[in-house]
Amino acid sequence: MEELIQQKLRHVGLRDKIVTAEEAASFIQDGMALGMSGFTRAGDVKVIPTALAERAKEAHFQVDVYTGASTGPEIDHVMAEAGIVRRRGPYQGAAAMRKRVNEGSVLYADAHLSHTPELVRQGIYGPLDFAVVEACAITEDGYLIPTTSLGNAPIFVQEAKEVLIELNVAHTDALEGIHDVYVPKHWGSREPIPLTKATDRIGTIGIPLDINKVRGIVITNIPDVPSPITPSDEETDQMAQNLINFLRDEIKAGRFTEDLPPLQAGVGAVANAVLRGFIDSEFTDLELYSEVMQDSMFELMDAGKVKVACGASITLSDGMSETVFSNFERYANKLILRPQEISNNPELIRRLGLIAINTAIEADIYGNVNSTHVCGTKMMNGIGGSGDFARNARLGIFVTKSSAKNGDVSSIVPMVSHHDHTEHDVDVLVTEQGVADLRGLSPKERVAVIIDKCAHPDYKDQLWQYYQDACAVAGNHHLPHDLEKAFSWHTRLMKTGSMKQQVTAE
Amino acid sequence: MEELIQQKLRHVGLRDKIVTAEEAASFIQDGMALGMSGFTRAGDVKVIPTALAERAKEAHFQVDVYTGASTGPEIDHVMAEAGIVRRRGPYQGAAAMRKRVNEGSVLYADAHLSHTPELVRQGIYGPLDFAVVEACAITEDGYLIPTTSLGNAPIFVQEAKEVLIELNVAHTDALEGIHDVYVPKHWGSREPIPLTKATDRIGTIGIPLDINKVRGIVITNIPDVPSPITPSDEETDQMAQNLINFLRDEIKAGRFTEDLPPLQAGVGAVANAVLRGFIDSEFTDLELYSEVMQDSMFELMDAGKVKVACGASITLSDGMSETVFSNFERYANKLILRPQEISNNPELIRRLGLIAINTAIEADIYGNVNSTHVCGTKMMNGIGGSGDFARNARLGIFVTKSSAKNGDVSSIVPMVSHHDHTEHDVDVLVTEQGVADLRGLSPKERVAVIIDKCAHPDYKDQLWQYYQDACAVAGNHHLPHDLEKAFSWHTRLMKTGSMKQQVTAE
Repeated sequence: MEELIQQKLRHVGLRDKIVTAEEAASFIQDGMALGMSGFTRAGDVKVIPTALAERAKEAHFQVDVYTGASTGPEIDHVMAEAGIVRRRGPYQGAAAMRKRVNEGSVLYADAHLSHTPELVRQGIYGPLDFAVVEACAITEDGYLIPTTSLGNAPIFVQEAKEVLIELNVAHTDALEGIHDVYVPKHWGSREPIPLTKATDRIGTIGIPLDINKVRGIVITNIPDVPSPITPSDEETDQMAQNLINFLRDEIKAGRFTEDLPPLQAGVGAVANAVLRGFIDSEFTDLELYSEVMQDSMFELMDAGKVKVACGASITLSDGMSETVFSNFERYANKLILRPQEISNNPELIRRLGLIAINTAIEADIYGNVNSTHVCGTKMMNGIGGSGDFARNARLGIFVTKSSAKNGDVSSIVPMVSHHDHTEHDVDVLVTEQGVADLRGLSPKERVAVIIDKCAHPDYKDQLWQYYQDACAVAGNHHLPHDLEKAFSWHTRLMKTGSMKQQVTAE
Repeated sequence: MEELIQQKLRHVGLRDKIVTAEEAASFIQDGMALGMSGFTRAGDVKVIPTALAERAKEAHFQVDVYTGASTGPEIDHVMAEAGIVRRRGPYQGAAAMRKRVNEGSVLYADAHLSHTPELVRQGIYGPLDFAVVEACAITEDGYLIPTTSLGNAPIFVQEAKEVLIELNVAHTDALEGIHDVYVPKHWGSREPIPLTKATDRIGTIGIPLDINKVRGIVITNIPDVPSPITPSDEETDQMAQNLINFLRDEIKAGRFTEDLPPLQAGVGAVANAVLRGFIDSEFTDLELYSEVMQDSMFELMDAGKVKVACGASITLSDGMSETVFSNFERYANKLILRPQEISNNPELIRRLGLIAINTAIEADIYGNVNSTHVCGTKMMNGIGGSGDFARNARLGIFVTKSSAKNGDVSSIVPMVSHHDHTEHDVDVLVTEQGVADLRGLSPKERVAVIIDKCAHPDYKDQLWQYYQDACAVAGNHHLPHDLEKAFSWHTRLMKTGSMKQQVTAE
């Protein structure tokens, strides 16, 4: 072990900074703001959060916790359960944290993932007291080599007063070299980000450390918690086919060639499954310029379909994790891990002309999308990067199954109960029913396309009925709504358990 | 006149292209798509639209009309009234067009102003048959010098099959030199936009013309239609003071120095009046990186407050127009006219770290903003550039008076009836009552700040009552709403003429 540590902790000036998790946790005081590494379970810190939760058994304290995105159980479960999180941002995705976010005992402000570094720069999260960051190694010349995510780690390390490091020897050495760390300067002296291709490397292989800010290094040996497996099903296969057929039509229309623009795909089961659909397509040499590198991206690599895959994290299921990390050399030369300020940057998304594929909870007849709040009130996870991508991509595509909860919920509703993406940012809507191409259409035209192409057949008549009612009230207006009935589907669901007008007893 | 034309039409190869407005109009066929110059009344084409409307008396035809933003009466009044506009985008602002947009006889898709060039590149507006563009001059080497706006003229000229030009001798020669034309390349070969300061010039002084595409040139002599005067009042003065005091607090908090970041201010009376408030402030050397250069910007120049003012158009009231254009040399060296793809580009807005000040029709207790649809259905103008700026600025500020219609309408409502800007993009809300700084706050915290600081006193109790009702239904959720009452204020307004719960008969 000692030899392994020497091999990983190569900066001699830091060797005397090794502390226990408990010692590291003891540096953190009530009321402090922490910037912690971790993006969608990957590369999060693991033992300091647990030690903090332990300490809470003796003395009450609370901290503000900012991360890249969601984390493994140590932050969003253990720390949440211990009641030591006062504020949380910019994203979460665990049951324990979600419960506290909803009841309001954790003050949660979800934010566009590309915005968080700017909020740090502005001091909106307060001065960050500690960056708490997982590392795979620290080089001779003081670069912190991150692990399976980059997320906000670079800006946290840069801006925090002090730095705590978890040096995790469980990660493969082969991770060294896949990171590309670039941090835009503060406003006033900021230059163009010099990335013009998804394959470009523009920064350093690690995060530059101010050695004097390093307060302690904890040695750990704990793998990332795998993500749940996300199997495809008949509907996601159909959605993938619908999407791919749409792209074929775009090629026929001359909008791009078979060398597709770089693709981004949102986190989670549906987007993952849709991306998997490219395996059996004619498309090859794919450039994946995304946020989270999920199972399907590695399946695409195994199928020889990928030119480059980049993102802010590598988040895999148990089985895929085993495959990938025990043969990491096979993938490494096609992988680039980027800070979320780069993976999600409007400047780059727009310059590269991405096709962005993100998941909707629900969409409405005019093309607005809810991606965060069930029935307008209950937070699921957060907006994440969907707004960064949908607003700036060449094609902003949202995917959702047309119905949920055994058909009791229509994913196409009269008006979304919470607005995360307005009609101006939703170019294309895909369900297993079909594809609604909304570009350039007026609202009244969008209604027909969305109901016709995307709604579940069980709800089509009911949607048309709503639209007729809306036109009776405001048909001479640009965007007819009957504000008294706009949420009637959601209130019916809450009262009867179904959005259907007449629930038949079978 | 002949001499004047020689002086303005300096490319000898184009001298034989001069045609009458009627001839030019005759080239335009039923079903064609036109990209016409014009941005907020400035620099629009004037005689070809009128000639088209005349032709419609003899033969029925319709065209699709895309512009920079809103236009003078020739397009959005005369052409609208003649019934010859089938589709319209991306923005309009005239009564005649608004009526047709709302009734649906003109198919209108409003869009983020920075998105329109990308939509043109993708062919979403169809292949553009004609660019119809106003010019101040055409140089010896074939550059079209635009007039008082740039807007989308460069992309229209570049992408359209043919070009029609209105060479308008009414404009001062001094306009030559204030344009800075830069058009990003198509995706795949696009490079960073090389602008790092508001003062930078990155392009050419005119739009490069493919001479073979020029189908005709019409000589005109008609000034722009002035915009209405936008007087300040007690409330806008107070809003300006509130905003300036907020900026002072930001300086005290160390977020920026007295050399303020570049400012953007939305179009229209309120934003114009708020900007005017800077005249009596300590701030100087202002960098105005905006969309429309309005009266107040020139008043600030007269007051010696401005280092540089740039935008996509110069849109002035009658009196100010007289002052500015008869002394244009006095202003010219501080002015830069940019294409809207540059003035509104997310890459640049974010790089420069703008303070963006835009106007809301209404905002809700969680910080969402409606800037387009009255009572959720009736289109006013369009989203314009507000989304480009609010999403990407360092500070996204929205301003609105706290009430309207003699107090019968509260501008702070339980839920906005149409969502243009979600809570993720609204950093700060300013009314004459005060300033709500929403950055980093959870939804439940935002409610208290917005009601306390921004709502009109007449509506505070009623807003709290709604929030209590919402908490009774969904208090254990992140963002409490009572979906049955969320729009009750709007439906009450429609029924009773007032949002107030009890309308007292006085």
